Amino acid sequence: MKLFTVGPVACRPEVLEEMSSQMFSHRSEDYKELHRETVERLRRFLETENQVFLFPSSGSGVMEGTVRNCVERKMLCCINGEFGKRYARVGESNGKEVERLEVELGKSITPESLDELLSSSPDVEAVAITYNETSVGLLNPLPELAKVVKKHGKLLFVDAVSAMGGVELKVDEWGIDVGFTSSQKCFGVPPGLALASVSEEALKRSERAKDKGWYFDFKLYEKYQQEGSSTHMTPPIPQILALNKELEIIEQEGGKQKRFKLYSERMQKIKQGIKALGLSLFPEPGYESPTVGCVNAPEGISGLEVYERMRERGFELAKGYGKLKERTFRIGNMGYIRLEDVAEMLQALAEAAK
Amino acid sequence: MKLFTVGPVACRPEVLEEMSSQMFSHRSEDYKELHRETVERLRRFLETENQVFLFPSSGSGVMEGTVRNCVERKMLCCINGEFGKRYARVGESNGKEVERLEVELGKSITPESLDELLSSSPDVEAVAITYNETSVGLLNPLPELAKVVKKHGKLLFVDAVSAMGGVELKVDEWGIDVGFTSSQKCFGVPPGLALASVSEEALKRSERAKDKGWYFDFKLYEKYQQEGSSTHMTPPIPQILALNKELEIIEQEGGKQKRFKLYSERMQKIKQGIKALGLSLFPEPGYESPTVGCVNAPEGISGLEVYERMRERGFELAKGYGKLKERTFRIGNMGYIRLEDVAEMLQALAEAAK
Repeated sequence: MKLFTVGPVACRPEVLEEMSSQMFSHRSEDYKELHRETVERLRRFLETENQVFLFPSSGSGVMEGTVRNCVERKMLCCINGEFGKRYARVGESNGKEVERLEVELGKSITPESLDELLSSSPDVEAVAITYNETSVGLLNPLPELAKVVKKHGKLLFVDAVSAMGGVELKVDEWGIDVGFTSSQKCFGVPPGLALASVSEEALKRSERAKDKGWYFDFKLYEKYQQEGSSTHMTPPIPQILALNKELEIIEQEGGKQKRFKLYSERMQKIKQGIKALGLSLFPEPGYESPTVGCVNAPEGISGLEVYERMRERGFELAKGYGKLKERTFRIGNMGYIRLEDVAEMLQALAEAAK
Repeated sequence: MKLFTVGPVACRPEVLEEMSSQMFSHRSEDYKELHRETVERLRRFLETENQVFLFPSSGSGVMEGTVRNCVERKMLCCINGEFGKRYARVGESNGKEVERLEVELGKSITPESLDELLSSSPDVEAVAITYNETSVGLLNPLPELAKVVKKHGKLLFVDAVSAMGGVELKVDEWGIDVGFTSSQKCFGVPPGLALASVSEEALKRSERAKDKGWYFDFKLYEKYQQEGSSTHMTPPIPQILALNKELEIIEQEGGKQKRFKLYSERMQKIKQGIKALGLSLFPEPGYESPTVGCVNAPEGISGLEVYERMRERGFELAKGYGKLKERTFRIGNMGYIRLEDVAEMLQALAEAAK
């Protein structure tokens, strides 16, 4: 089965090989070296002087972390799909007040609407933005949105789960306080690890946070990283080995720009193929995601049907998400996908979408 | 390097092979089947009708889960080492009042002292017990302690991190409300996964818990498991594949009693070897752990020195923990260790402890 999933995604053989390494202690020198190297590679990748922490959790664990460490009372969640909604639910389930900036599915969050809302709600402490909304295949205009957040002097949390590693994310230049992803998306590593850049200001908020818990306490991540290049609990060593290997490969292949170019080339091919079949993408033009293609189902066939037909042909795409289950199907463009795989997948789609 | 660590421990080749499987979606039928099979195997292993959930976290994540789902105001932590202390810290960092039943390092928690404390503190809602205290190599008398907890009608949380899989743990018979471990201890799987049995009563408490958060919400684990044999976030699929394989091997080898016998045989050999070298174990006689040997350092040599000398000879033991760093070293007896490895390790120790 060839994977065009939205995560977990296909991993390259060198990465899978790392996963089967024999284990060793997370308090050993070997582990400390691995931890330091991985963190330094990530800091270069994200162009940041901020700390980068490794979390034994999925990306949603870091959502919970931002809420508990950095929000005292109230946050704002920008919502144009399921993962924006999840952020709001995580906020509320942790006892925070959540203001919502919600737009119709398929539309992007605009800087103007965010500016307006922040002007009328000055008591918001932090803004959460889903960079790439996986559920609808839409990339929000993060650099512009970040400027608005910073103009209002708010903390900025970026759910970069299906973006980091496949699309540019400049943490310091854009002013991101916490930017996070999980291993099983654009980095093409198996699931079980999350990572986040955390700013000085976010750590200051954590310092004075009450009842923030232990597991996601940013100050504990900082302490254990600085004092022992490790974490305060046992980390998922296989996924860290695998991520470090993938980051090494990215460097050897010529750096992140080359990787982003590959993502953009593959998505270009997918878009052309879809267009040639008379199909269209769901999001408003100009905001289509480079990592997830959310395709409107052909007339007379449901998205689920296309998904099933593609499985029969040896290709695992992704079903439409939530309300869009029937109306769309999704083509993931993350992880280990070769250009010839894209061509084969599009050939199969030509039959499946008939 | 041969591992006699206290986790992550050495994994058998078949388990490591599972770790390098190509990934697939956690919403696919393949995943659902894996999830169901693993959970059913665990329920049989633990002899429980309770639900068993899989957590994308370390074991300490489940500590946080018990505190947030099941304790409204106050809990009691039994402490005879670092991991009992950790439970108390997790309780307090989540805003709960923590009563402590703390005994001298090396002593076990006694049913009498627990009974006394519960009689004088009727407002305690739940009791947390570390079954096997890894830091001092001591097995607390859980069946007797559990009886006391149940007599007082309290919830019982059991940190079985370095016990489950190597020592008997009868969830229903003993009345354990939440019993948990992580993958990288007695099950001999790489780190990145935790698992817990959760009783009906624990789920009822979760239902009425306020501000319990999203990531460790037991009711969400229940919902996603019942409705879709999955989790509400992406699970660490490689570790679940590996755990399922290890559980299959345990069944094929003749069941859990046979596995416990192996653990006990290995520890018997380790104890005999230590005695022959004129060394002794740290905990009070009768409570020595079958999974972790905490050995008093020989006269004139620090525990750290023994640890280093063993490394030079190709054996990774574990350093003494916390206050016992100088006075002890530890020999882990978890995961993939063959009887001939034990013999070789003891030979090396004869030189290292001179």
